[in-house]
Amino acid sequence: MSEFRFDLRATDGKARLGAVHTSRGVIRTPAFMPVGTAATVKALYTEQVRGTGADILLGNTYHLMLRPGAERVASLGGLHKFMNWDGPILTDSGGFQVMSLAKLRKMSEEGVTFQSHLDGSRHMLSPERSIDIQCLLGSDIQMVLDECTPFPATEKQAAESMQLSQRWAVRSKEAFEAHPRRHEGQALFGIVQGSTYPDLRAESAAGLIETGFHGYAIGGLAVGEGQKEMLRVLDYTAPLLPQDRPRYLMGVGTPDDLVEAVSRGVDMFDCVMPTRSGRHGQAFTRRGKVNLKNARHADDPRPLDESLDCPAARDYSRAYLHHLIKNGEILGMMLLTWNNVAYYQRLMADMRAAIEAGDFAGFYKRFKEEQAEGDISPL
Amino acid sequence: MSEFRFDLRATDGKARLGAVHTSRGVIRTPAFMPVGTAATVKALYTEQVRGTGADILLGNTYHLMLRPGAERVASLGGLHKFMNWDGPILTDSGGFQVMSLAKLRKMSEEGVTFQSHLDGSRHMLSPERSIDIQCLLGSDIQMVLDECTPFPATEKQAAESMQLSQRWAVRSKEAFEAHPRRHEGQALFGIVQGSTYPDLRAESAAGLIETGFHGYAIGGLAVGEGQKEMLRVLDYTAPLLPQDRPRYLMGVGTPDDLVEAVSRGVDMFDCVMPTRSGRHGQAFTRRGKVNLKNARHADDPRPLDESLDCPAARDYSRAYLHHLIKNGEILGMMLLTWNNVAYYQRLMADMRAAIEAGDFAGFYKRFKEEQAEGDISPL
Ligand SMILES: [Zn+2]
Ligand SMILES: [Zn+2]
Repeated sequence: MSEFRFDLRATDGKARLGAVHTSRGVIRTPAFMPVGTAATVKALYTEQVRGTGADILLGNTYHLMLRPGAERVASLGGLHKFMNWDGPILTDSGGFQVMSLAKLRKMSEEGVTFQSHLDGSRHMLSPERSIDIQCLLGSDIQMVLDECTPFPATEKQAAESMQLSQRWAVRSKEAFEAHPRRHEGQALFGIVQGSTYPDLRAESAAGLIETGFHGYAIGGLAVGEGQKEMLRVLDYTAPLLPQDRPRYLMGVGTPDDLVEAVSRGVDMFDCVMPTRSGRHGQAFTRRGKVNLKNARHADDPRPLDESLDCPAARDYSRAYLHHLIKNGEILGMMLLTWNNVAYYQRLMADMRAAIEAGDFAGFYKRFKEEQAEGDISPL
Repeated sequence: MSEFRFDLRATDGKARLGAVHTSRGVIRTPAFMPVGTAATVKALYTEQVRGTGADILLGNTYHLMLRPGAERVASLGGLHKFMNWDGPILTDSGGFQVMSLAKLRKMSEEGVTFQSHLDGSRHMLSPERSIDIQCLLGSDIQMVLDECTPFPATEKQAAESMQLSQRWAVRSKEAFEAHPRRHEGQALFGIVQGSTYPDLRAESAAGLIETGFHGYAIGGLAVGEGQKEMLRVLDYTAPLLPQDRPRYLMGVGTPDDLVEAVSRGVDMFDCVMPTRSGRHGQAFTRRGKVNLKNARHADDPRPLDESLDCPAARDYSRAYLHHLIKNGEILGMMLLTWNNVAYYQRLMADMRAAIEAGDFAGFYKRFKEEQAEGDISPL
């Protein structure tokens, strides 16, 4: 197995072009990771996901530990084999979903106990157990268990929460390094917390860097603070992170969020937005979001966006997509999800090309103009 | 446009090998038509349907007249273009679904008025309007509107119902021949009714043959009479039909039904079973039906059926399929539907090869043995 490595290939302003090397292949950054919650990117074959240009998927530890169970996935040969995806997979720690989905949660220094939202069964997640699960899954990039600081939080709440996360990060690293299933190409990322307090973000970053991780995530954002506040946090947090390690903004976001975050030096992203919106009749295009449920599309023979290299965007009329969505047809969800994942990947490819060409500013301007233009006029 | 034509290429016992020529391509018979109710074979891309070996799809006039509407489909270039399928399409008349789905039905000599099950809107279906809709859709093989005789029916009920269908068949043919949108390669099939009464079936067949159709369907079966009774009706009805026209058994059926009906001289079939079952966790295989919801598959690393040339059957473990189905994942429905449509097409291909080789009896024996063997043993 080759070692985990990040190559920073070029910068343009704060925007970074890079390559994350894992034993399962290279992740071109800036990268968007489609979310494959329960071992499937909903409504897509993995071949399609690969075809859109995605280098890496995200899997959710919380969902997978409940069903089908980490030990079961391990005995079936690991998550990659289980879901037919041979590229890299990043898994989260499970902490975020425990807080948003599980019932009867009980937090302690040790970890968190909770009941499954599926069947009420009792489970425990600690830094050590989270790493154990991620190693059983065979994840290429693993995340430390942290406490997701609620928003808003007072500075005192945010500090205590961040300090608990720091102690858990140290335990996570120890568990990761000691795990018998760990192999050379795998990586562990720390997560910077501290809410909207610059001093706490700095304390968090410094502590994590001292512990030492393969990459650094920025957590606790996209939790209701709004884009403006999120970008402010990025403005002062990104520069705290080492130049030679990948930076991952968790759970973000809209196309505009991605462009703004890349311009502030972020390398990796994940979000359910393209897939979830696709299942609900929303298409992302270079000219903004299009609601296919809208009656204006009922007689429109034009495709969603001929310029996107994806059959879903090119080979079906808006009238047909509207029909499928109105009728709750599975094919409608399949096609819009496909379009959305393809659009997100094209956006990342465009950003990478712009950074390489030293024209991120030009890309940024064109992106904003096209999005502002809005969808094509009705017929 | 080339003319509609049926070539009977070989027979083996009563089983027939043939080719239906339409202006949109050849349908190899015996043929199974996947059902694309609302302009989509649910959970499959048309490329996948084509890839399984299907030569023709079925569309439902009732669903399409309500949504998106026949006139709308026509103005968008027809059903083939609308749904991205350039092969032949057969449409039913809409009568069966009016009887099974619509509300406040009112039958008369003229036709049937009803309320949409979707929004309560009022509609009328007559022999003429059904043909009009099918021509607006651009269907390659159209069906006459008939009254679906309920089962059981007294001989008197069955006779009156059949005679109404005969009068409607004549009107359908007149409407078809006069329709301004009709073109050379399109065909109209009559439908033999008469319930389980040999004399009525004979009267129906004779009347339809006198009127003259491009092909003949056997209707009013698979409505609760059971396989034994259905096969008895086929025994005496199939020989009533012209050798040189395709014979279509509507709404049938299980793999075993198909084999039995082919052995009695039927050429064409349609059924929602492979697609509907696929969405509900049931897989068809050469060794019978497999319920992927069953916990016996939870840890089974073996594929559904390696011998089937379909990624869904070959490239995913039963454990993974079980996981997807248990979680209600769309991908589970996509994969099982794909497997099922592929299995049905392989069954038809195997029957065609057996007839060509003059070994339908050998095929029949092996088919029954494999199905009786049942699924592979649990690990
Ligand atoms: Zn998100
Ligand atoms: Zn059926």
